[in-house]
Amino acid sequence: MSKPLIPALAQFVAATAGRNMTKAAYVAVGLGVLSMVLLTVNPAYETAHRWVDALLWACLVYFVFEWVVRLRHMAQTGRLSLYMTSSAGVVDALGALAVPVALLIGIEPKTAWLLSVLWVLKVVPGIPGLRQLRRVLVLESGPLVSVLVIFLMVVFLASVAEYFLERDVQPQTFGSVPAALWWAVVTLTTTGYGDVVPVTPLGRVVAAMVMISGLGVFGLWTGILATGFAAETRRDNFLKTWESVSKVPFFAALGPAAIADVTHMLRTMELPARTMIIRKGTQGDCMYFIAAGEVEVDLPGKKVQLGEGAFFGEMALLGNNKRGANVSTTKVSRLLVLDLVDFRVLMARHPDLAETIDAEAKRRTLENK
Amino acid sequence: MSKPLIPALAQFVAATAGRNMTKAAYVAVGLGVLSMVLLTVNPAYETAHRWVDALLWACLVYFVFEWVVRLRHMAQTGRLSLYMTSSAGVVDALGALAVPVALLIGIEPKTAWLLSVLWVLKVVPGIPGLRQLRRVLVLESGPLVSVLVIFLMVVFLASVAEYFLERDVQPQTFGSVPAALWWAVVTLTTTGYGDVVPVTPLGRVVAAMVMISGLGVFGLWTGILATGFAAETRRDNFLKTWESVSKVPFFAALGPAAIADVTHMLRTMELPARTMIIRKGTQGDCMYFIAAGEVEVDLPGKKVQLGEGAFFGEMALLGNNKRGANVSTTKVSRLLVLDLVDFRVLMARHPDLAETIDAEAKRRTLENK
Amino acid sequence: MSKPLIPALAQFVAATAGRNMTKAAYVAVGLGVLSMVLLTVNPAYETAHRWVDALLWACLVYFVFEWVVRLRHMAQTGRLSLYMTSSAGVVDALGALAVPVALLIGIEPKTAWLLSVLWVLKVVPGIPGLRQLRRVLVLESGPLVSVLVIFLMVVFLASVAEYFLERDVQPQTFGSVPAALWWAVVTLTTTGYGDVVPVTPLGRVVAAMVMISGLGVFGLWTGILATGFAAETRRDNFLKTWESVSKVPFFAALGPAAIADVTHMLRTMELPARTMIIRKGTQGDCMYFIAAGEVEVDLPGKKVQLGEGAFFGEMALLGNNKRGANVSTTKVSRLLVLDLVDFRVLMARHPDLAETIDAEAKRRTLENK
Amino acid sequence: MSKPLIPALAQFVAATAGRNMTKAAYVAVGLGVLSMVLLTVNPAYETAHRWVDALLWACLVYFVFEWVVRLRHMAQTGRLSLYMTSSAGVVDALGALAVPVALLIGIEPKTAWLLSVLWVLKVVPGIPGLRQLRRVLVLESGPLVSVLVIFLMVVFLASVAEYFLERDVQPQTFGSVPAALWWAVVTLTTTGYGDVVPVTPLGRVVAAMVMISGLGVFGLWTGILATGFAAETRRDNFLKTWESVSKVPFFAALGPAAIADVTHMLRTMELPARTMIIRKGTQGDCMYFIAAGEVEVDLPGKKVQLGEGAFFGEMALLGNNKRGANVSTTKVSRLLVLDLVDFRVLMARHPDLAETIDAEAKRRTLENK
Repeated sequence: MSKPLIPALAQFVAATAGRNMTKAAYVAVGLGVLSMVLLTVNPAYETAHRWVDALLWACLVYFVFEWVVRLRHMAQTGRLSLYMTSSAGVVDALGALAVPVALLIGIEPKTAWLLSVLWVLKVVPGIPGLRQLRRVLVLESGPLVSVLVIFLMVVFLASVAEYFLERDVQPQTFGSVPAALWWAVVTLTTTGYGDVVPVTPLGRVVAAMVMISGLGVFGLWTGILATGFAAETRRDNFLKTWESVSKVPFFAALGPAAIADVTHMLRTMELPARTMIIRKGTQGDCMYFIAAGEVEVDLPGKKVQLGEGAFFGEMALLGNNKRGANVSTTKVSRLLVLDLVDFRVLMARHPDLAETIDAEAKRRTLENK
Repeated sequence: MSKPLIPALAQFVAATAGRNMTKAAYVAVGLGVLSMVLLTVNPAYETAHRWVDALLWACLVYFVFEWVVRLRHMAQTGRLSLYMTSSAGVVDALGALAVPVALLIGIEPKTAWLLSVLWVLKVVPGIPGLRQLRRVLVLESGPLVSVLVIFLMVVFLASVAEYFLERDVQPQTFGSVPAALWWAVVTLTTTGYGDVVPVTPLGRVVAAMVMISGLGVFGLWTGILATGFAAETRRDNFLKTWESVSKVPFFAALGPAAIADVTHMLRTMELPARTMIIRKGTQGDCMYFIAAGEVEVDLPGKKVQLGEGAFFGEMALLGNNKRGANVSTTKVSRLLVLDLVDFRVLMARHPDLAETIDAEAKRRTLENK
Repeated sequence: MSKPLIPALAQFVAATAGRNMTKAAYVAVGLGVLSMVLLTVNPAYETAHRWVDALLWACLVYFVFEWVVRLRHMAQTGRLSLYMTSSAGVVDALGALAVPVALLIGIEPKTAWLLSVLWVLKVVPGIPGLRQLRRVLVLESGPLVSVLVIFLMVVFLASVAEYFLERDVQPQTFGSVPAALWWAVVTLTTTGYGDVVPVTPLGRVVAAMVMISGLGVFGLWTGILATGFAAETRRDNFLKTWESVSKVPFFAALGPAAIADVTHMLRTMELPARTMIIRKGTQGDCMYFIAAGEVEVDLPGKKVQLGEGAFFGEMALLGNNKRGANVSTTKVSRLLVLDLVDFRVLMARHPDLAETIDAEAKRRTLENK
Repeated sequence: MSKPLIPALAQFVAATAGRNMTKAAYVAVGLGVLSMVLLTVNPAYETAHRWVDALLWACLVYFVFEWVVRLRHMAQTGRLSLYMTSSAGVVDALGALAVPVALLIGIEPKTAWLLSVLWVLKVVPGIPGLRQLRRVLVLESGPLVSVLVIFLMVVFLASVAEYFLERDVQPQTFGSVPAALWWAVVTLTTTGYGDVVPVTPLGRVVAAMVMISGLGVFGLWTGILATGFAAETRRDNFLKTWESVSKVPFFAALGPAAIADVTHMLRTMELPARTMIIRKGTQGDCMYFIAAGEVEVDLPGKKVQLGEGAFFGEMALLGNNKRGANVSTTKVSRLLVLDLVDFRVLMARHPDLAETIDAEAKRRTLENK
């Protein structure tokens, strides 16, 4: 290996060791899976098989190397067994070992490389709202399982009835209960391929009832998930906001009851640096508190920086409907958003907050005259 | 050009310059797109090709002219760059330029005119609840993207599995992973064309699991949107109502907490002129406050006008269940509706309001004796 | 006509004149539509054409007669024009006139009788929750129309794109934009007949995006309806309950705020006579107030009647979890149900109500010792 | 029979007599239904017909025996008529008698054994959330039936229209109204087999409207179920929690209003023995009260047992975000979970509770120093 490779490798090692997914890993997953897809398209593979093979091997080497680096890092920090039993560890091991093992035990290469589809599992921890979705599924698992059992029971009863009604007319497609089960699943999910279709009058009546049950199962399922999701969203938002509210001095004077109140009203917003928050001249219907980071207000003739704990956009809620200046972030910032609807309620319940905001608004107006 | 054309043009210019969509523009979009559709229907086009061509050219001229007028107007008011980078500006430019450019660079006319389908984008800003829908999609984008990523992951894993299981039996339809991907999308969305269907027992088990996952993805998606929509509706209604409440003197005496309270209870209703609001003899379960406009009460022997700030329909809530007179708008009006359910709560919390309404009701009853 | 027919006719006239649908009318709708269906099934019609024809004519005579009776009744009570412009009047007129007019102007009988399908419209006013569903659709019409417009726009853009991509490969199925529009509707609703399916790679990518949009449209639609339905259910229940609460003396002592409170907690339940409400020995989790009607408590050795304003089932909420006696209605009754969850809250907020219930429970226990 | 069989039988009798489903019964249902499925798969049945027949007969004997044992037990405890009219009794009787009766009256064995699919009904009472789902369906039955009637009406009108439009072009598939009804159900549920597809332009327009109505029906249905489910979940949770709260001495000092308050905030969780509840080092966002059972806190150097009425996990809510120790159950336990969001609100409204928790937390910290 040539010299300049070594610092690059060192940097790569440091980056991959601690974090779950580097940008390079996302690229490797994308390229690897794309190559695997091309491998199965005969005309494409014949013209470019060198490139496809090279890419697949490169991705595999990358994932094996990543896995070894991570194993070493975990061993050094004494978390090896924790890592190897965690889902991330299992996915890393699968990504590194599945294809080589398949090749070693003599599976045909074109089939062995199909296992590289397991690389897509590596992006799972990077999905943003996954934890929230999983909580909903866990909390609502009771009713969801009930609906699934009802689903399976309808599938079973319907397929035996349909087998009985159709077997003589269509021995090819309804010749056994497993064949009828296939029909029942395709129908109850309202997929309806049309490869297996009842033709006898009674068979069609049963099928119609299965389809309408399908709508019912669907509706129940969705109803359960919607209910769970609404509760989880409220809970998740509260947790994120609570932490931030306590860091804003403006709310420090409030008692604990009022803070719980305020937390329910605020929404957290994470923004990258140099993002426009307020555009001059647009309609305004919320104000912002800075929980972390910094924003810049673009006033005529000067630029004002506001830091942690400051608020802005309150003019729009105090009668002046048009935004008066551009505001954008200078760093990565976390803002708390207070909608007009909640602002009114808050001001009514805590008149002292109203006065603080009013006074600050007047001061700013005078200053900018 | 003949003389009478000039004032008509001037009027047209004034109308198109400021507003987003004139009635003429809606007609032009409708006619243009209809002509484009006819262009592709051979028998229809052969019998009426002169008319179709003439209509298409007329619509194109209209949109080009509209675009030029608007550009000039924006340049005069110094908002040219703002307009050209706005979505409305881009859509206007596309509508005016896409077809001519395609014709100029030598694309066959029948194909070039297909681009006139872009004209339908012009109606987007006219869709009433669009802003609301967009807010829901933005606020819930986190979980929605999670579900989309899960969707894509299931599609990918299922299509590789199905390719592996079915490629030998059905090389025509499952001969490559892209072909299997097509099957997976058609199945997971429960569309189920039936052009590609697994036939091996294991392939059908995988397919059944994909269909059931499809219901799950659907349910999650709907649950997220339902949750977001409920929150947004509440917020949107509050904003619209808040503005109106402050204009009704009846509520002026209330403190800010009570106003927030009241605003949560009222619903805003926009009505055109000469619309019947209350029909004599029907069941009444709400009362109305006039935020803007005027209504006419059709009492026996006389007609009474009520203007901004007045209320009516309160008799139905004070024990007398049948509406006593026809009431209709005389101008475009904005009414605030108070349902019986909320009326009871309001009266209980603010007894002074109850007295005002009661006194007014008695005065009216006496007057009409 | 023979003599005994006259009183029967008179009774029929009296019954049909005022009410919307008599039991006889439901039977006539059922028989008439069934006959019309049989008319189109050739083998069935050939064997029984006399019966089918006779039934169809009998139903038609019935509906014409019903319509004439109702017209006369409305004319006598001076509501003729109101009735004829109401939806019920239009449906009655269609049911009586459509088939005869079609036969008179020379349409082939087998086709003319198809119009008797309009008779099913007569059951519309009898659907229980229809008013509630219509209110939801009206209140949420704004966002629902937005989603419909988005739906149509996606359909339009997708079908032009698909026409462009597929017309050369499949001129039979994608040979014009209207044909592609058919494909787009079938796909976006996730129906997926499979009669028209894209086969080019790009066409399939467009189709996949249309399917995923289909899920989104579905989700938005459902979310809007779920939100509207939740609000409407709450409102509807309040209205029904409010009326009943004021008739129960037990609640008379409460102030208006408490009554609004109580109304939110109660659920109305309409029961036919001789219906078992409480079964001895089962788990109890609610108590009942009698708003109208009468119930009978089946105590050991005696039967006790409770009339309007009384309550029962409170023992189950005061610690004694098992129901102690059978309770059933003796007449058609309207009950107000108070769930355990709300009972606790009510008792906490209004201790005086708690005492009343407690005292009554003690009195009853002593009496039955 | 040999001697050791008798005590096993006695134990079996005791187990089956009282409870609804023993583990053995679940196994029997699974094996029996699997055998019935195999019976219909010719190749599989031919190779293993002895085993399949033996299993079917064994399961049948099991269910007949179970039914006889249960009948005797019920007769002895005087509940025979109650049992025989209950749904469980009917299902037991069907499972025991359907196949033998079918065989006795001379139905071909392969068909008679199909009736063993009725055995799957035996698992219905074991489905966890079924009672909850049924309550939702009962409470919302009004609007659900309305939607069903609308569904049927659309199906009927659409199928007559489609029959009229398509009968001349496709006499095979649209040759009668029943055939068109089949098409309408398949289309309105968005199943879309594709076996019957309109081809005339007007027929396709009608079909497109049916599909869009299908989405609407779906949306309404789901909206109704979601609304009902949200209400039912809230109610069910309250009932389960209420019972437990009263057993926790910590809450005993609260007045009834506060208890109702607290009950709304807590969630019940049933855990088997030896289950890890808190893992050291993870993020904590809730605390736990022990309503029944016992947990073990794994502190450095010692293990502390906490019994009924104790609480734990409060440190995570008092500023210290990381869990400090592993906690797991030692017996089957019922815990009440208080989320951070509700903890804040509770502490604000009931400062005395806050002090109790605070004092206990301090005591524990000191003790473990």
